[in-house]
Amino acid sequence: MADHELFTENRSAEVVAASFADTPDTRLRGILTSLVRHLHDFVKDVELTTDEWAAAIGFLTETGQTCTDTRQEFILLSDVLGVSMLVETINNRAGGQFTESTVEGPFHVVDSPPRELGADIAEDGKGTPCLVTGSVTGPDGQPIPGASVDVWQANDEGFYDVQQPDVQPLRNLRGLFTTDDTGQFRFRSIIPRYYPIPADGPVGRLLKATSRHPNRPAHIHFEVSAPGYRTVTTHLFVADTPYLDSDAVFGVKSSLVREFPRVDDPARAAEAGLPNPFRTVHFDVVLGK
Amino acid sequence: MADHELFTENRSAEVVAASFADTPDTRLRGILTSLVRHLHDFVKDVELTTDEWAAAIGFLTETGQTCTDTRQEFILLSDVLGVSMLVETINNRAGGQFTESTVEGPFHVVDSPPRELGADIAEDGKGTPCLVTGSVTGPDGQPIPGASVDVWQANDEGFYDVQQPDVQPLRNLRGLFTTDDTGQFRFRSIIPRYYPIPADGPVGRLLKATSRHPNRPAHIHFEVSAPGYRTVTTHLFVADTPYLDSDAVFGVKSSLVREFPRVDDPARAAEAGLPNPFRTVHFDVVLGK
Repeated sequence: MADHELFTENRSAEVVAASFADTPDTRLRGILTSLVRHLHDFVKDVELTTDEWAAAIGFLTETGQTCTDTRQEFILLSDVLGVSMLVETINNRAGGQFTESTVEGPFHVVDSPPRELGADIAEDGKGTPCLVTGSVTGPDGQPIPGASVDVWQANDEGFYDVQQPDVQPLRNLRGLFTTDDTGQFRFRSIIPRYYPIPADGPVGRLLKATSRHPNRPAHIHFEVSAPGYRTVTTHLFVADTPYLDSDAVFGVKSSLVREFPRVDDPARAAEAGLPNPFRTVHFDVVLGK
Repeated sequence: MADHELFTENRSAEVVAASFADTPDTRLRGILTSLVRHLHDFVKDVELTTDEWAAAIGFLTETGQTCTDTRQEFILLSDVLGVSMLVETINNRAGGQFTESTVEGPFHVVDSPPRELGADIAEDGKGTPCLVTGSVTGPDGQPIPGASVDVWQANDEGFYDVQQPDVQPLRNLRGLFTTDDTGQFRFRSIIPRYYPIPADGPVGRLLKATSRHPNRPAHIHFEVSAPGYRTVTTHLFVADTPYLDSDAVFGVKSSLVREFPRVDDPARAAEAGLPNPFRTVHFDVVLGK
């Protein structure tokens, strides 16, 4: 690297940023320059002590060493600091015209099975039955036939199929649907339960030390795509779930919360193929171009 | 945690900071609030993409997983971003009155052997001989007899003893001295060489991607302490070493650079117990209260 001025407290960020002056990738140079500026501002703002710095080094090291093939503790840290949600939001600005996005989460790890419209994704029949209906349209309201609607959710105890391989059938509460000629979709499921993110590692200790709970409010995941449109990855949140106002990963946007009203009508239940009474929800998805 | 407002791009940091409102330890709350604000500002400033975020998660994970009992890659990352030096400087403000501090580094891992004043710490006799003299005084210039002067350094090939257990005697180029009745110290050694920090891990890849070299300029470590005074951990840098203006860890302060003049004088060499010619350096250490 090029020579730099000697380090001083006042000019620390400028001195370090100058060391990146020869970075060939200008985007990388810009990111590192900004990172150094904000990181040094943080250290100066709080006047971080040597012991606190050492504790931070230990925390980051343990976070890295908690990661395995099936657990990503650094994503969890990013989640509980709101960084994941911020990146998601910045990269998918909906501007009020399109369906808003939220975090994908760590459970979209097996392919959802293709299913016929109207199918029941609750293969084990456990939980409060629910009919989910909706539509997929473009920004001007035009229906999009043949759109892919990929859904996955936790069960009535707050677990995904992959978390309970001995209890739930694999691909339980997952389905890949295709909208009909009018851009509509519908399927049967159950009301999901809220659940905690993994809290037995360093991130869990951070939550505990800050009197934060680890729970996410109940939700159904959607990933909706169609040729020529921007894919949206989002959730549908259940309006009466606990933790709607304190999601551990800050995933809730008000446009994504829906009532799931109870229906007590044997004729409608028979039509839907569900026991009476049952609950319903409707979700109109608008894709951007 | 308490309920919080829902997440928006504009108010992301406020929303996340509010989740820490119930943290019992007010210092921890203050640190996390500042961290979240600066971290979100960084993400917004550069409009971090989803792919860049994923690359950062991968980099941090690998940094954690590179750490072992004898290697601390997160400290190395802190070093090359100037954070270690900033924390050191903030916590040891000398204000021009006392000897300035710099990073301790990772090689102060074995106790230095107590030695008599004037002893030669170069046990294997390799390298360019050098006589090191100096004094330890208090802030008003009063000599401090009986002060501890702990020194350690790399050899003429840039390696510490612990890095070359089959080549150097253990405790080569280390010594623990005690100042005499007038607060003076002196010992014999050799001129150290510059050396690279470990560059075969993720931090090394970061340096390479940014066209930065991994080298530190040649230096002798000092840790000087006396009862009733603040301990100072610092280096003495060799004025004619390469990399003085581009230390990979930003450890150089101009007050710590010294000429190591060459002496060609058989009488002085005999007096010092060194071959002729030899080099010399003088370091007056001033401790704060």
